[in-house]
Amino acid sequence: MATKEIPDIIVSRLPIYLRALQRMQEHGIQSTSSQELGERVGISAAQIRKDLSQFGEFGKQGTGYYIPFLVDKLRHILHVDRLWDVAVVGMGDIGHAIARYQGFSNRGFCVTMLFDNDPAKVGDKVGDLVIRDIKELVTALRAEEVKIVMLAVPAATAQAVADKLVEADVKAILNYAPVSLSVPSHVHVQYIDPAIGLQRMAYYLD
Amino acid sequence: MATKEIPDIIVSRLPIYLRALQRMQEHGIQSTSSQELGERVGISAAQIRKDLSQFGEFGKQGTGYYIPFLVDKLRHILHVDRLWDVAVVGMGDIGHAIARYQGFSNRGFCVTMLFDNDPAKVGDKVGDLVIRDIKELVTALRAEEVKIVMLAVPAATAQAVADKLVEADVKAILNYAPVSLSVPSHVHVQYIDPAIGLQRMAYYLD
Repeated sequence: MATKEIPDIIVSRLPIYLRALQRMQEHGIQSTSSQELGERVGISAAQIRKDLSQFGEFGKQGTGYYIPFLVDKLRHILHVDRLWDVAVVGMGDIGHAIARYQGFSNRGFCVTMLFDNDPAKVGDKVGDLVIRDIKELVTALRAEEVKIVMLAVPAATAQAVADKLVEADVKAILNYAPVSLSVPSHVHVQYIDPAIGLQRMAYYLD
Repeated sequence: MATKEIPDIIVSRLPIYLRALQRMQEHGIQSTSSQELGERVGISAAQIRKDLSQFGEFGKQGTGYYIPFLVDKLRHILHVDRLWDVAVVGMGDIGHAIARYQGFSNRGFCVTMLFDNDPAKVGDKVGDLVIRDIKELVTALRAEEVKIVMLAVPAATAQAVADKLVEADVKAILNYAPVSLSVPSHVHVQYIDPAIGLQRMAYYLD
C-alpha cells in the first residue's frame, strides 16, 4: 500500500471521515454505512466507498463499516496512530489559542514547544510550556526532531521564519499567517486564513 | 457575468489571488504577470489565466496585469468591495482571538457582534464590543441583518447553534468547531479545523 500513489484530493478527505467516525464512536455508535457517514460529512456515499477502496476492504456489503476498525485503519493510514510533537511559533492571540487548545491530543498531535521573538513574552508560561526565544528555534527544533510547526507570526515575517523552519528540517507547516509561503517541495504547507473562507462564501451572497 | 455559473473550485482560488495581489500592492508593486503571481501562490500561470478569463479580460498580452485594476475587479466579483457585518458566536480562546484580529477589515469583513452562553462572560467587553447573551442570538442577528457568522462553540453544541443561525437567516457560517454541520443547501459553510490540516500533512510524513 505504501508504494501506491494516492491522489492528494483523496488524502484531504480522510481526516474528515476520521473526525466524523471518532465523533460517532464518542457517542457509542459501533457501525455505520457509507450513506450515513456521507450525510454526516456532506460527501456522497459513492465517493466515500471509492476513496476508502484505495486502501483495501474496510466494509462488508450489507453490514457496512465497523467503526473501531475503520478508525484504527484511518489513524494508521494518516500516521496519527502516534503522537507528533508540534511547535507553535508566534505567541499572539492566535498562538495562545492554539497552544491552549485541548483538541489536538486525541487526533495525533501534542504541542510541546512555543516560540516568540518578543523579549516581554519569552519566559512566560502557557499551560505547562515556557515560551522560548525564537533565536533558539532552529537548534531546538533540530534537537527534539520536531517535524511539524504551526506558524502564527505576522504576515510580514512569515516567509523569513518559514525559511528557518526549512533549515531546521521541519517537514510540515500549518500556516496561520495570511500569506502564501515559498518552501521546497518536500515541505508540506496547509493554510488557515479565516478571511479566505469568508471571501469564498461572500461570492455567493448578494 | 452574474448569470454564468462559475465552478466552486475556481471561486475557491480567487481569494488566494486577491490576497497575494493586495500584498504586492502594499509593497508598492503596480503590475504583475500570471507567472509571477503563480510563483507567489503556488498555482500554475496557465491555471490563473484560465480562472481569470472566466470573468473577462483582465490582462494584456506582454504587459501582464495592472494590480490596482485586478484587485478592484476581484473584490467586486467576490462581493468584498463592501464591509460585511460578522458575528462571532462562542467567546473562548478562539472566539477572543477572532474578535481581536485586525486582519478582516481590509478584506471585506467587520466583526460587529459577539455572543456567548456563559453568564460570567456576557456583558464583558472585547475591544469596543460587548459580549451578548446567546439567548438574543436570533433576534439580534435578524434585527441587524447579519448574514455571516464565525462559529467558535464546542463541537457538542455546534449543530444546535447552527440551527439557530439558519433560523436567523444567516447565509454563511465559518465553522471553527471540529464537527461537520448539517444546514440547508442555501446556507454556505466553510471549516477551520487545524487538526484536519495537520492530519492531511502527517499522511506524507514518516
